[in-house]
Amino acid sequence: MYRTHTCGELTETQIGQNVQLAGWVQKVRDKGFVIWIDLRDRYGITQLVFDQDRTSESLLEKAREAGREFVLQVRGEVIERASKNPKMPTGNIEVLVSEFTVLNASHTPPFTIEDATDGGEELRMKYRYLDIRRTPVKNNLIFRSRVTMEVRNYLAGKGFIEVETPYLIKSTPEGARDFVVPSRMNEGEFYALPQSPQTFKQLLMVGGMDKYFQIVKCFRDEDLRADRQPEFTQIDCEMAFVEQEDILDTFGGLTLHLLEEIHGIRLEEIPRMTYDEAVKRYGSDKPDIRFGMEFGELNAVAQQGSFKIFNEAELVVGLAVPGGNSYSRKQIDALTDWVRRPQVGASGMVYVRCNEDGTFKSSVDKFYTAEDLSKWAEITGAEKGDLILVLSGETHAVRTQLSMLRMELAQQLGLRKPGEFAPLWVLDFPLLEKDEETGRFHAMHHPFTAPKPGQMELLDTDPAAVRANAYDLVLNGNEIGGGSIRIHDRTTQEIMFRHLGFSPEEARKQFGFLMDAFQYGAPPHGGIAFGLDRLVAILGGQESIRDFIAFPKNNSGRDVMIDAPASIASDQLDELHLQLKK
Amino acid sequence: MYRTHTCGELTETQIGQNVQLAGWVQKVRDKGFVIWIDLRDRYGITQLVFDQDRTSESLLEKAREAGREFVLQVRGEVIERASKNPKMPTGNIEVLVSEFTVLNASHTPPFTIEDATDGGEELRMKYRYLDIRRTPVKNNLIFRSRVTMEVRNYLAGKGFIEVETPYLIKSTPEGARDFVVPSRMNEGEFYALPQSPQTFKQLLMVGGMDKYFQIVKCFRDEDLRADRQPEFTQIDCEMAFVEQEDILDTFGGLTLHLLEEIHGIRLEEIPRMTYDEAVKRYGSDKPDIRFGMEFGELNAVAQQGSFKIFNEAELVVGLAVPGGNSYSRKQIDALTDWVRRPQVGASGMVYVRCNEDGTFKSSVDKFYTAEDLSKWAEITGAEKGDLILVLSGETHAVRTQLSMLRMELAQQLGLRKPGEFAPLWVLDFPLLEKDEETGRFHAMHHPFTAPKPGQMELLDTDPAAVRANAYDLVLNGNEIGGGSIRIHDRTTQEIMFRHLGFSPEEARKQFGFLMDAFQYGAPPHGGIAFGLDRLVAILGGQESIRDFIAFPKNNSGRDVMIDAPASIASDQLDELHLQLKK
Repeated sequence: MYRTHTCGELTETQIGQNVQLAGWVQKVRDKGFVIWIDLRDRYGITQLVFDQDRTSESLLEKAREAGREFVLQVRGEVIERASKNPKMPTGNIEVLVSEFTVLNASHTPPFTIEDATDGGEELRMKYRYLDIRRTPVKNNLIFRSRVTMEVRNYLAGKGFIEVETPYLIKSTPEGARDFVVPSRMNEGEFYALPQSPQTFKQLLMVGGMDKYFQIVKCFRDEDLRADRQPEFTQIDCEMAFVEQEDILDTFGGLTLHLLEEIHGIRLEEIPRMTYDEAVKRYGSDKPDIRFGMEFGELNAVAQQGSFKIFNEAELVVGLAVPGGNSYSRKQIDALTDWVRRPQVGASGMVYVRCNEDGTFKSSVDKFYTAEDLSKWAEITGAEKGDLILVLSGETHAVRTQLSMLRMELAQQLGLRKPGEFAPLWVLDFPLLEKDEETGRFHAMHHPFTAPKPGQMELLDTDPAAVRANAYDLVLNGNEIGGGSIRIHDRTTQEIMFRHLGFSPEEARKQFGFLMDAFQYGAPPHGGIAFGLDRLVAILGGQESIRDFIAFPKNNSGRDVMIDAPASIASDQLDELHLQLKK
Repeated sequence: MYRTHTCGELTETQIGQNVQLAGWVQKVRDKGFVIWIDLRDRYGITQLVFDQDRTSESLLEKAREAGREFVLQVRGEVIERASKNPKMPTGNIEVLVSEFTVLNASHTPPFTIEDATDGGEELRMKYRYLDIRRTPVKNNLIFRSRVTMEVRNYLAGKGFIEVETPYLIKSTPEGARDFVVPSRMNEGEFYALPQSPQTFKQLLMVGGMDKYFQIVKCFRDEDLRADRQPEFTQIDCEMAFVEQEDILDTFGGLTLHLLEEIHGIRLEEIPRMTYDEAVKRYGSDKPDIRFGMEFGELNAVAQQGSFKIFNEAELVVGLAVPGGNSYSRKQIDALTDWVRRPQVGASGMVYVRCNEDGTFKSSVDKFYTAEDLSKWAEITGAEKGDLILVLSGETHAVRTQLSMLRMELAQQLGLRKPGEFAPLWVLDFPLLEKDEETGRFHAMHHPFTAPKPGQMELLDTDPAAVRANAYDLVLNGNEIGGGSIRIHDRTTQEIMFRHLGFSPEEARKQFGFLMDAFQYGAPPHGGIAFGLDRLVAILGGQESIRDFIAFPKNNSGRDVMIDAPASIASDQLDELHLQLKK
């Protein structure tokens, strides 16, 4: 026992008690006749005091040697503080030290262990073990642990069984790139790390394990974009004998449970929207509905004049910025520049000021009358004092651009409030998605998703029109989960593989075991997977996942702390029957 | 909603209700005028009934088409059974079917879906999704899920935080062989899959996260012995500011909690034994203490005569078999053959019958008097009616042999009772272990284990004598967990690496990050890891782990269901900058 109490729990209640604490030196203040040391552990900070009147000279000397981040063990009496600090839970007391041991010394840390540190990203990652001592990072990790416990308790309470599926599986070229693991015992062969336990959870359904979940690491060898990790964690779930409604009910329930348990926010239900509607109203399949600024499609009212750009556009679409009439010309120009950046890609932007006196002032005044513009205002829902911003072009592209602008404006206007949570089910996703480069269709969710009943024939005639019972759960503009009702018979699965360009041989080689399984009494089933890293970050009111992961990798997939990946010994390669390519 | 109830819950309470069930056909009995179908799901079996009087002809026809493992959805009325089956929870009722849908057909399964199946191991593994439908396998997986929930609840209740550590780490030649993962983005470099999160959990301690746990997959590329898996699950735990006693208390508490929650067995505390004592009394560092048969060392009483074999032996050691005097000569010969098998390796065995009349009859009567043998009986604790079995030879070897014999005898005598649980802490393990082949010492637990205070100097003079605060938790003769108090300062860690044969450069290259971390205020810490697969199997009253793993691999590390590992496409290899060795 190194301690009788933690550094976070002593209050007036313990005054007069002799206690033992252990922790790190946060700060030393040496006034000569008195020394204060702030001692920190996971639970808080307690002030230690040494003074000439009550502390031996030798103890004072020892206290003077303790530097930042030294590890101390002290014994002493809890006393009332002369000048209290009401901001600290332990702010009313201090510990008058009578015994003092340096358990370990410390070099001066490369950055300050404070809430707002002076350490840059790279340095923090190299010394992540010091970064974790900082309260924000520590609290994120504790928060993550708490969220996963809540998830497990909820699902276990609903009769779900956590089943561990294997990590050493088989590579399948479908989807993203696999990480592979050479097999020493099977020369020339490789395992793959799972991108998700998709096929295994479906096999568990075939196996009768009708409510499965697992919180599990998954792996994708993708070129890393910001805030993507090569290994990430999923809350992976599947149910048998269910329809879409059962899944929405169960996992919507989970989401509401988390909001209530964690934030005390009680929502009655999660609103729903079809994919088509989401894209039309918000330009995105993961709209942030904490705020309005819905899209107004203006083709009918903007393509009758002589403004060639709009007349030639597939879609003319705008939104109203609340209070935006107060924007200066410079601000509007900045927004125009913003949408023209290559990352957004609009060619230009039209604006309409809705003046307080009911008049309009727009960048296209010479093409449109006030009556025209009043229709625009009506369609976009613009009120007096607002600003209408309009983009035009190819439907999909212009919606995406306007959606990005909508999010940027909301950010600027403070409408994306971290403490506010607006979950949304987006339903009826397309089954297939066309790859614009190759012209080939691929599965929007994955090749195991079932088309909606009665839509199989459409696959041949109008594949893009086929819809699936596929759903995403969106929270504050982020996809936190997605799933679908699966195919559960061999014939449909074979047809699906054929439409996705698999030859029968390829399909059999890669997914034969699954199609075989479908022949032995596969029940109807469906499921969902949540991205835990993102779910936790968003529940924590943040957008970046990195500080909710204890030891993240950088954008080159490197762990800069342990310096991995690294070269391996040549006899290791030999054993694996491999050589590096020259 | 495919069902209103499961197949496990209907009783007399629901008689008269109209219900909907879904599940698999377990069995069809067709008497012509009446058909019974046993419908099975995860929760149980419910009998469906169709009869000429109350069921339409078309429904009877449909019911006749349902074969084993067909997936059905039925609607009907719960009625009282004419002939009740008190062995089944649903045995008092049946469902008179009014609507009947085949949700999916099934081929005839390759083995019977019964508690005692006719399927061999290989077939069961190939069709594991069918094997999981069998009650024993299904129950094992549900049991595992329950145990892990109990573990998490206990540890979370004690303030432990579950932190996920990375799976893509760095290869270290220490210990077993790593599985490696080639990096596409870092040419010629590899990640390794963790053999355990050892260094990361220690870094979390340096990071102030003073109570950590994680239920986590670990990986070892070892030649597989029976009942070993290349991927296995650990309950990995670490605490800071603790001494050994704190760890024994916390995780002994966990074990007692599991025994009580899961089996209703309430034990007051877990007995303790040193490593030296365990080896002396039971010949093993993981003794099964559910039964006696402790060793008696006989050197003092067996080496004074003219029996050369004993006189020349380093150790003469025996045990008393309770009631063994009734063994026939043939039985004793069989035991002698058993200890002479190469897997055991004894050269011979001496026996002493302890007759009911107080006389002795032994295989060495010409060398020893009755008085001699009565001393043997005293030392081994043999009573009248027992049989003393004695082995001799090199100390370590003969202890191991006698320990194997002890376990075999206990098995034969039914002393290893599955419903009885006897946990044991084995303490004070040697720090180092000599590799008999190379003569080099390596770490018995791992290179991060601290020598006992004050024993550092012994490392130079008598390395085999150095003891560590290292402990194993043993349950019913199986090691279910092991851990130690760790080194937490750079100098000691450097000395340890030197003694283990690392050059300073190697040590720095592989574990520089850990030794650096020790310079920034590392707290005293220690931990333990439980092998979850084995823990669950033993708590489940079984010895083999395989049926507590949903999708295990075979002894060649293959998943015969999905047929992994497998070859990968040559462009995958190219991207990884690798080629197969010719």
